[in-house]
Amino acid sequence: MTTIRVHVAGHDHEVPSGSTSFDLLKNALKEHADIKKVLAAVWNGKTIDLSKKLEENGTISFLTFDDAEGKQVFWHSTSHILAQAIKRIYPDALPTLGPPIEEGFYYDFDNLQVTEADLEKIEKEMQKIVSENFKCERHEYNNKTDALVHFGSNQYKKEIIEGSTEALSGYSQGEFLDLCRGPHVPSTKYPQAIKLTRIAGAYWRGDSKNKQLTRIYGISYPSKDGLKEYETLRAEAEKRDHRRIGKDLDLFGFEEVSPGSPFFYPKGAIIYNELLVWLRELYVKHGYQEVITPLLYEKSLWETSGHWAHYQENMFILKDGEQQYGLKPMNCPSHCLVFNRMGHSYRDLPVRIADFAALHRNEARGALGGLTRVRKFSQDDAHIFCRADQIEDEIASLMMLAKHIYEYVLGMQFAKVVLSTRPEQFLGSIETWNEAEQQLKDALLRAGIAYEINAGDGAFYGPKIDAQIKDALGRYWQTTTVQLDYQLPQRFECAYVGDDSKKHPVVMLHRALLGSLERFIAVITEHFAGRFPLWLAPEQVAVLPITDGQREDAITLVAELKSEGIRAVLEAGADTLNKRIRDCQLRQVPAIIILGDKEVAADTVALRTLDGNTQYGLHRKDFVERVIIAKKTRTLTF
Amino acid sequence: MTTIRVHVAGHDHEVPSGSTSFDLLKNALKEHADIKKVLAAVWNGKTIDLSKKLEENGTISFLTFDDAEGKQVFWHSTSHILAQAIKRIYPDALPTLGPPIEEGFYYDFDNLQVTEADLEKIEKEMQKIVSENFKCERHEYNNKTDALVHFGSNQYKKEIIEGSTEALSGYSQGEFLDLCRGPHVPSTKYPQAIKLTRIAGAYWRGDSKNKQLTRIYGISYPSKDGLKEYETLRAEAEKRDHRRIGKDLDLFGFEEVSPGSPFFYPKGAIIYNELLVWLRELYVKHGYQEVITPLLYEKSLWETSGHWAHYQENMFILKDGEQQYGLKPMNCPSHCLVFNRMGHSYRDLPVRIADFAALHRNEARGALGGLTRVRKFSQDDAHIFCRADQIEDEIASLMMLAKHIYEYVLGMQFAKVVLSTRPEQFLGSIETWNEAEQQLKDALLRAGIAYEINAGDGAFYGPKIDAQIKDALGRYWQTTTVQLDYQLPQRFECAYVGDDSKKHPVVMLHRALLGSLERFIAVITEHFAGRFPLWLAPEQVAVLPITDGQREDAITLVAELKSEGIRAVLEAGADTLNKRIRDCQLRQVPAIIILGDKEVAADTVALRTLDGNTQYGLHRKDFVERVIIAKKTRTLTF
Repeated sequence: MTTIRVHVAGHDHEVPSGSTSFDLLKNALKEHADIKKVLAAVWNGKTIDLSKKLEENGTISFLTFDDAEGKQVFWHSTSHILAQAIKRIYPDALPTLGPPIEEGFYYDFDNLQVTEADLEKIEKEMQKIVSENFKCERHEYNNKTDALVHFGSNQYKKEIIEGSTEALSGYSQGEFLDLCRGPHVPSTKYPQAIKLTRIAGAYWRGDSKNKQLTRIYGISYPSKDGLKEYETLRAEAEKRDHRRIGKDLDLFGFEEVSPGSPFFYPKGAIIYNELLVWLRELYVKHGYQEVITPLLYEKSLWETSGHWAHYQENMFILKDGEQQYGLKPMNCPSHCLVFNRMGHSYRDLPVRIADFAALHRNEARGALGGLTRVRKFSQDDAHIFCRADQIEDEIASLMMLAKHIYEYVLGMQFAKVVLSTRPEQFLGSIETWNEAEQQLKDALLRAGIAYEINAGDGAFYGPKIDAQIKDALGRYWQTTTVQLDYQLPQRFECAYVGDDSKKHPVVMLHRALLGSLERFIAVITEHFAGRFPLWLAPEQVAVLPITDGQREDAITLVAELKSEGIRAVLEAGADTLNKRIRDCQLRQVPAIIILGDKEVAADTVALRTLDGNTQYGLHRKDFVERVIIAKKTRTLTF
Repeated sequence: MTTIRVHVAGHDHEVPSGSTSFDLLKNALKEHADIKKVLAAVWNGKTIDLSKKLEENGTISFLTFDDAEGKQVFWHSTSHILAQAIKRIYPDALPTLGPPIEEGFYYDFDNLQVTEADLEKIEKEMQKIVSENFKCERHEYNNKTDALVHFGSNQYKKEIIEGSTEALSGYSQGEFLDLCRGPHVPSTKYPQAIKLTRIAGAYWRGDSKNKQLTRIYGISYPSKDGLKEYETLRAEAEKRDHRRIGKDLDLFGFEEVSPGSPFFYPKGAIIYNELLVWLRELYVKHGYQEVITPLLYEKSLWETSGHWAHYQENMFILKDGEQQYGLKPMNCPSHCLVFNRMGHSYRDLPVRIADFAALHRNEARGALGGLTRVRKFSQDDAHIFCRADQIEDEIASLMMLAKHIYEYVLGMQFAKVVLSTRPEQFLGSIETWNEAEQQLKDALLRAGIAYEINAGDGAFYGPKIDAQIKDALGRYWQTTTVQLDYQLPQRFECAYVGDDSKKHPVVMLHRALLGSLERFIAVITEHFAGRFPLWLAPEQVAVLPITDGQREDAITLVAELKSEGIRAVLEAGADTLNKRIRDCQLRQVPAIIILGDKEVAADTVALRTLDGNTQYGLHRKDFVERVIIAKKTRTLTF
């Protein structure tokens, strides 16, 4: 009997050749792994079924539902259960493709008419298949002809097979067989909690010229608890949906005539402009210089920058006579032009150029949604032109700034930072890369930021850092990015004169802390559930006289607050006090002031905050001072 | 002998039919007019030669060099003198066209090679023609054939004659005859002071497909004093040219790849943003609501607004698949959309919507120049949606605001205000117009603003007010405009619900106080000659330690100023104190602080201002306070 050496979690095991991962778990590893939780394995870098026979030496690790890859296998398997259930109930339906997605899975069917009302019935059938506990078995086909024997009657599978350049395989569970690369969970019993979430139309291969198919979305979990947690989070996310809150609070909206380009109504524009004021203050403190640049550039600029060759399809292009222009999708080329007008000595570097110009990207109409995927937006976009020896300082200071912004000002956790390093194809010398990567690591260390390394995932023109934040619902959002760039400065011949009086190329850092301001407003709207900190709140103070007797005093207080730059409103309508308070709460006014005779006599106010607490007998002067400080120092709570 | 009745300046005169204006001046009016100053006449609304025979009853007035129309006749006549001089020196040159322009005149010639060095020689010949005092005589031709007898050998004149649909005439002076509608001054002696200013290339009929001609520009005056004054003003204007100052002070610039779209470099962006901060403060005080709107809209919006039919050639249009989009050239349609999302009761009006969106207009490349004629710009643009009975209040308050801005904050005179009233073609009822015009007049009266009426010059969709300011050189600039609009709200169905619970159309006021911010920055750059008031100055305070001994104190002062939001810089380089002072003066830093041992010991500063004065022994604390106040209250002088 031949044996192979399998390396697991730091240890080598000698096992018979042809053992499966399953054998390994049951025998060599039985004390170390909770076998019921294991869904699939990673064998020499490739995800495989637990039933696959191992026939050479190698390294193995196991996937559970806690791993992102494990979830994908799990949801992929559930999509097969969905297809099996559909075939049982609607025998004429034609399964096409059913992949896992970021959250759950879908399966597209031709020749299927179903409505939301049918989903429960289909779920029931899926649960039945789960309880039937079919083994998921892999079948490998020698060639296309072999595969067509099983799938040739389904035109979609046929098309896939005929177009395939890889080895073909199928998976069966009970009476159901699907064309599939796998891997899958060992049997249909794994998804103990299944929820079908919605039905949508979708085109075969995403092409609107093809026939429309019926897509059923779903999600599944190993236990009922998982599903429950998901549903709670989803309900909360729906309540916090920025599109909904944006509408309820009159912040922003869209019009058919300008797809993907948000309108910020007066209250939304206040938030937008407050963010700009804040960023500009930070820019002055951190040595950034703001510029205002054109939006429309001739083709030749985009040829120099490389966008014409590599990014054109994402741009809005227009023709004027013989000349072609592109609306800028990003600020980097403009900033290279600005840098070149400045004429720099090594002593002037780093030069940090910031810009809030409107950017346009021609996103597909179908991909647009709320403020998270837009065609027109601005970034808190800056480009730092520096010497190679300044990279570490620059990165450290900007990462500290980013951390400050998220943690202290917005109360959000800086959750995951990834450093992507030199890829196989790269520009420049290995020494330059090594030096730069070391500077990035040292910078992150200095900024006190834990990071992961994504080896080889940098762009060919430089390594980069991507950071994600975690919002109040524990969701991750991609925000801060820093990208080193050795290429663009070369294309634009951006140089500085060194202490040797010679010209040297500069290094360029692309960086955005918040990213797209539009998307960032979506994130904070959901994070705060519309209850913005006082400095961002469109209405900061509402003053409510209990009766007409305190009306004049209320007006005086509003005027006093306004003269201090506070956004204060008088709420002295005919409605009852309770109704007026409720209105202000719905509008998320952080400071609701109630003025009765007692307050006026004592020169105090009663302050109702959005947490439901009321503070009585607060000295009027102290209250005004407190609002001014909360605004000026941008405190998170009031 | 038949007589006719001629009405002059309120009086009727009976004169023989066939009298000329000249006869009138010599006889009936000899005591009232300085006959030597009269250049031409206006007879029943038409400008005529003084030698024209009057043969029916009518009204006459006379033009001198003080009238805009008089200047045009004067300069037009000088262009003929230029052509005559050219023909004498360069007999092969072909005169084409030679009109008067805003300041002076030009004449385009084919087959003429001249350089700036030749201008003096040509001027001399022109002066000779002036002293020869030829009579300028009009010749009328019966038809094209008659005219071609005289001009047929000049292909350009021939083309004009053949294309003409009007009666043809020529003017002769001495040996020179030109095809011309006239009128002209009586003889060549009038332009006593002539200056040829420059040579340029120009295409026949402005079309670059045609042959390039040689254009000679010039200006002329009745006396040497006039020319001297012009030259002084011109030299001063050249020194103040915003393009020159913009470059010297690193404020803004242009790039070939984005014609007509300015780049505001860091120092220029500071001025731009300070203007925005200031306008936003005013907006809050005056009840405006800012919005942020998309730039790119589908064709259908422009069809609704009427821009597609009437303004398309000025717009940048782009195609994306089947859809056509236009980059917005103005904000009005966006604001109608915003207004309609707001849902208004009569109690909510007026609604004042402001926007600083980037606007694009496809100005011809040749027409672009500095910041005064650009393709990309923002306006301090607002649209007021109100009830008809609110027009007066709105206009009065916004005109007062405009006056405040120009007179008190910028120290510029509000020089000329014109109210343009109902034209022959108009939308709506005469009663509505009369009512609106009366409200505009009452509003101007209330705002204490003198105005002229330009009867019949309103747009068909509403009356308007245009205001000009007068800058430090006495030049007029069109700035504030208010336009009533009954049409656009109808096209967009903008309505409010009245106290009768019915829908009523709103009245829309388009208004801009500064106009294009880019152009406004050009105006103030020239007005202040780059010496901006402290609140706008890119660098507000420079601190210069006399020696290294005061360096630390200088750093502390800079830090203190910065913490108060003041743009302060340390100037502690190796250069001498005088050199450093001169540098700061060239950069137009309004407050230059000199710190010596004496100042440090006494906790004072020496303040050098740009008027050249130095104030010693100013308490440091008082100085800081003074800068803060100058910034906050936006004082004109420091």
